[in-house]
Amino acid sequence: MLHEPHHDGSPLYLEHEAPTLGWTVKVRVRTAASDPVDQVWLRTTYDAEPVFHACGPVERDEHTVWWEGELPVHNPVAHYRFLLGTASGTPEADQRWLTAAGVHRHDVPDTFDFRVSTYAPAPDWGRDGVVYQVFPDRFARSAAAAERPTPGWAVPADWDDEVVFEGSDPRTPTQLFGGDLDGVVEHLDHLAEVGVSVVYTTPVFPGESNHRYNASTFDGVDPLLGGDEAYARLSTAVHERGWRLLGDLTTNHTGDTHEWFRAAAADPASPTRDWYYFNHDGSYECWMGHGTLPKLNLADRALRSAMVEGPDSVVARWLRPPFAVDGWRIDVANMTGRLGAIDVNHDVARAVRRTAEAERPDALVIGEHNHDASGDIDGDGWHGTMNYSGFSWPVWSWVRDPASPARPFGRPLPVPRRPGPLVLRSFREWLARFGWRAASQSWNILGSHDSARIRTVAGSPEVHRVAAGLQFTLPGVPMLFAGDEIGLEGVLGEDSRRPMPWDRREDWDHATLATYAALAAARRDHDALRRGGLRWAHVDDDALVFVREHPSGSVLVCARRAGGPAIDLEAGLLGFADGTPVLATEGDLAPLTEAGGTVTLPAAEGPGVWLWRV
Amino acid sequence: MLHEPHHDGSPLYLEHEAPTLGWTVKVRVRTAASDPVDQVWLRTTYDAEPVFHACGPVERDEHTVWWEGELPVHNPVAHYRFLLGTASGTPEADQRWLTAAGVHRHDVPDTFDFRVSTYAPAPDWGRDGVVYQVFPDRFARSAAAAERPTPGWAVPADWDDEVVFEGSDPRTPTQLFGGDLDGVVEHLDHLAEVGVSVVYTTPVFPGESNHRYNASTFDGVDPLLGGDEAYARLSTAVHERGWRLLGDLTTNHTGDTHEWFRAAAADPASPTRDWYYFNHDGSYECWMGHGTLPKLNLADRALRSAMVEGPDSVVARWLRPPFAVDGWRIDVANMTGRLGAIDVNHDVARAVRRTAEAERPDALVIGEHNHDASGDIDGDGWHGTMNYSGFSWPVWSWVRDPASPARPFGRPLPVPRRPGPLVLRSFREWLARFGWRAASQSWNILGSHDSARIRTVAGSPEVHRVAAGLQFTLPGVPMLFAGDEIGLEGVLGEDSRRPMPWDRREDWDHATLATYAALAAARRDHDALRRGGLRWAHVDDDALVFVREHPSGSVLVCARRAGGPAIDLEAGLLGFADGTPVLATEGDLAPLTEAGGTVTLPAAEGPGVWLWRV
Repeated sequence: MLHEPHHDGSPLYLEHEAPTLGWTVKVRVRTAASDPVDQVWLRTTYDAEPVFHACGPVERDEHTVWWEGELPVHNPVAHYRFLLGTASGTPEADQRWLTAAGVHRHDVPDTFDFRVSTYAPAPDWGRDGVVYQVFPDRFARSAAAAERPTPGWAVPADWDDEVVFEGSDPRTPTQLFGGDLDGVVEHLDHLAEVGVSVVYTTPVFPGESNHRYNASTFDGVDPLLGGDEAYARLSTAVHERGWRLLGDLTTNHTGDTHEWFRAAAADPASPTRDWYYFNHDGSYECWMGHGTLPKLNLADRALRSAMVEGPDSVVARWLRPPFAVDGWRIDVANMTGRLGAIDVNHDVARAVRRTAEAERPDALVIGEHNHDASGDIDGDGWHGTMNYSGFSWPVWSWVRDPASPARPFGRPLPVPRRPGPLVLRSFREWLARFGWRAASQSWNILGSHDSARIRTVAGSPEVHRVAAGLQFTLPGVPMLFAGDEIGLEGVLGEDSRRPMPWDRREDWDHATLATYAALAAARRDHDALRRGGLRWAHVDDDALVFVREHPSGSVLVCARRAGGPAIDLEAGLLGFADGTPVLATEGDLAPLTEAGGTVTLPAAEGPGVWLWRV
Repeated sequence: MLHEPHHDGSPLYLEHEAPTLGWTVKVRVRTAASDPVDQVWLRTTYDAEPVFHACGPVERDEHTVWWEGELPVHNPVAHYRFLLGTASGTPEADQRWLTAAGVHRHDVPDTFDFRVSTYAPAPDWGRDGVVYQVFPDRFARSAAAAERPTPGWAVPADWDDEVVFEGSDPRTPTQLFGGDLDGVVEHLDHLAEVGVSVVYTTPVFPGESNHRYNASTFDGVDPLLGGDEAYARLSTAVHERGWRLLGDLTTNHTGDTHEWFRAAAADPASPTRDWYYFNHDGSYECWMGHGTLPKLNLADRALRSAMVEGPDSVVARWLRPPFAVDGWRIDVANMTGRLGAIDVNHDVARAVRRTAEAERPDALVIGEHNHDASGDIDGDGWHGTMNYSGFSWPVWSWVRDPASPARPFGRPLPVPRRPGPLVLRSFREWLARFGWRAASQSWNILGSHDSARIRTVAGSPEVHRVAAGLQFTLPGVPMLFAGDEIGLEGVLGEDSRRPMPWDRREDWDHATLATYAALAAARRDHDALRRGGLRWAHVDDDALVFVREHPSGSVLVCARRAGGPAIDLEAGLLGFADGTPVLATEGDLAPLTEAGGTVTLPAAEGPGVWLWRV
């Protein structure tokens, strides 16, 4: 695979990752010296008109030719791809297209074009960090938690109780374990051990459920979590460590107990009536038919101001002290502002981003989108998404234990087990569809509070660690759901919300915890793992081998879901110059060496991920 | 290939092609009885959220299973696809996606989803017709033409002169042959012979060039063409035959001799100054750097009214008597309203469509887009496009004579010759990307005044007729560039604008003319060729075999670019029930018969296209 022509949005290939509109930027393509390509053309779309610019060879050795061209960045998000001619001018003339999805021997639509965006990228902390998702009711209980009265809607649970998770059981949303924000503060050392630098909590607004996605107000923190003061303490503690804090906001809906909705439902003349979609019969639009989650009408200007626009909006206020949140994860970002023929989604996304950046220029905004977010994330809205489609499902489908009881999320059937070459196609197409930068800024998640746990999907600690290895080495920002690192299990989202067993450390998977810490350290220590390109080196059913390329040094990653034979790579095409071991999720790791132009990755007896500097 | 699961937007598979928003429509999928699929799910995106609906088997015979599901049309353009489960619930469980691009064994983005649009389709005459493109200066000269004085900018030519076509020759745009609109009127019998029903002329507004894409006014017809009266006569003559007339409008730019531009350039305070993009130094934006084609600023409301919006606009006025044009081909529709960070393209497209439909509800609006029009044509803007990408280039790349002198259009290298399977991929991906209905409403062109002639590309009459066969049998509306039907040649657009040799009928390719007429008749006589689905039956390097399926009877098409052996098809999967010959571009045609469950398409000694009812 190293013979394939290659380009991506990383520094080796693209001169500027966020050029100013009107600039011309250099782009580079590498081809193998043995590739008969004799012409390379850079094609961009200029106001939607295809325009071609010649590229010329600028570097050549016995293995590789580098071609360079100049891309005029004429539109805010400029599309481009490459046309590679062979035997040009002869009757055998042929052409290939190089797009972000790979090499095509037929003429393809613009779907998978490379893209460069003139909009600002996500802040460095958001791109370079490791995100840790906390579901407050289940993470940790401070001493104060025991003193708080249980509200009428809740069914109290002891910390070690079984989680009720079947949707048919009314206790599923009401079973309250009583975790709180001071509980989070008390366990930040654990996050430090994992290597976390961004704390993301699911909603802290009050809501009559254990998940709090049905907010009853956006004006204060749930007293059950310790209230505003506790959230301020969490913010202070997080920031004292040099970390960041992300909130979780439901722009798509509120709870039916929300003050806005109560007023609207009680009085058709209420100023907030038009903030929702009431029908003539008094019924109203809600999220996926759930009457407890009335949908917000973000075409309404007053709601827009209250919620997402300007310094008095919910989006802005929480970014200021004492909470000083560093940005938002936007719940149901995909459906926000969309209802039938109405679509103000982009306006809302832009407003959220602009409002947040007005409060703090380095704010981060991540939109939840459990499917194809491609149209929503390469512009001036969400910086990225929770990348289920481009990361979670391909990884799940590769590492999945066929006997796993993990239940589906986002489709009616469980993700099937698939061989490496099919998984590669998904990785490539989704990365292409999202665009290099937006994909790199999106979250690599192996699961969340909405899905089965990766441990349950993978079926073994070793394969779980293979998935974790990919999470920290493929382009994207790792987001752990708290407990992943110690091997918590769960067959679906609600089951995955099991309380952290702080008092049963003997049940923790300490080897996996150490692996997460090592992966986080490796990512921190190697620019290539955070900002490097992605070139595939070898893929078979059970092995995915790729190199993250960066001017400061590249890292080779070999992931195996099962044991397999040694793998030979052409040293020259790899650009091999080092071989120092970086990390092994299993076993020992010897340096790589070159012999006769070949670098041989060792055979493996079982699953694992191995990293070397190359 | 007949074993493949299949769905498309045709009546056998989709209950309504233009449902009302909020309707639920039945969709059907066929699978081979031998296919181990055990579950079929219809997946739609509901406000961008994936939602699944179960499908069940509703018909089954020994060959085929039909599955049916219900699609809620919740958004104006509803996306959907199918999830096919096999061995569901076992460790061997697998899943395939069926999208408009075919069957995928990996998880794919929404790019190639099926789409159903709630917007009105193109008028029947636009979908069922055969379009004939006339370049007025080169089509025919009436007697009056000789009386007209040659304007100062023009270099007069005799009708049989060689066309000057090298871009470096200043006579290329100024060589004037003097064709006029009464010349068109005089030759409508020829169009009738071909089977034409829609006459589309390139611009008739005055402009100081032979192509007239640099209009100097939109208020009258060029006197060199006979003026307003001649255009009215053409309109009357066309309509008397029950045909339709399409104009050609440059919404992207005018000529620098246009009255709007002259005023704007002469006086910065001119009311039309903001109708263009003037820079501070007096320079201005223009089409692809051509100073003679200043770009229009369609963000300007006054220009919007003058040009595209409301009953006084250019778009509206020409649709009224005496010209009574039935719609527009919009020049450079892709760049219209787009400039750098500005993009009002959709607003303009919607305005053109709305304005035209206000004048005549059955107006047709086709946007020129020489590349990926996918975002622009499935909504409430252009009904379709000149389908270079999804039709011309795949066909060219299949039939191309490697020794052809045809020069590139739209890319710096000539379209290469490619084998059937690669061409199939392009057909499928482009059809999917445009959407079934928009693709069906778009123009199947083998060339235009902007490209080489198909005869030059194909290199022989026989292969030319293969291309023509595909033009009339693949989904889409055939558009001929006048002269294609008699075998005119040309190596690039300007060379293709050779005058019609009315006085040299001995030079005409009468066999090809007869083929066009037969193809047009077949298309008229068979619903399947106009409205039928498209199921691929067999593809190899040199043969493309497909069936256009329709409840009123299906048509099987076998196209070969070279001779080849007999091809066996499974009669049961084909749904074979007839076998009557419809048309052959070469040789005789025997009825098809079934023997032992197999239908055998005869071997061929050379290129050709053969059609049977099945």
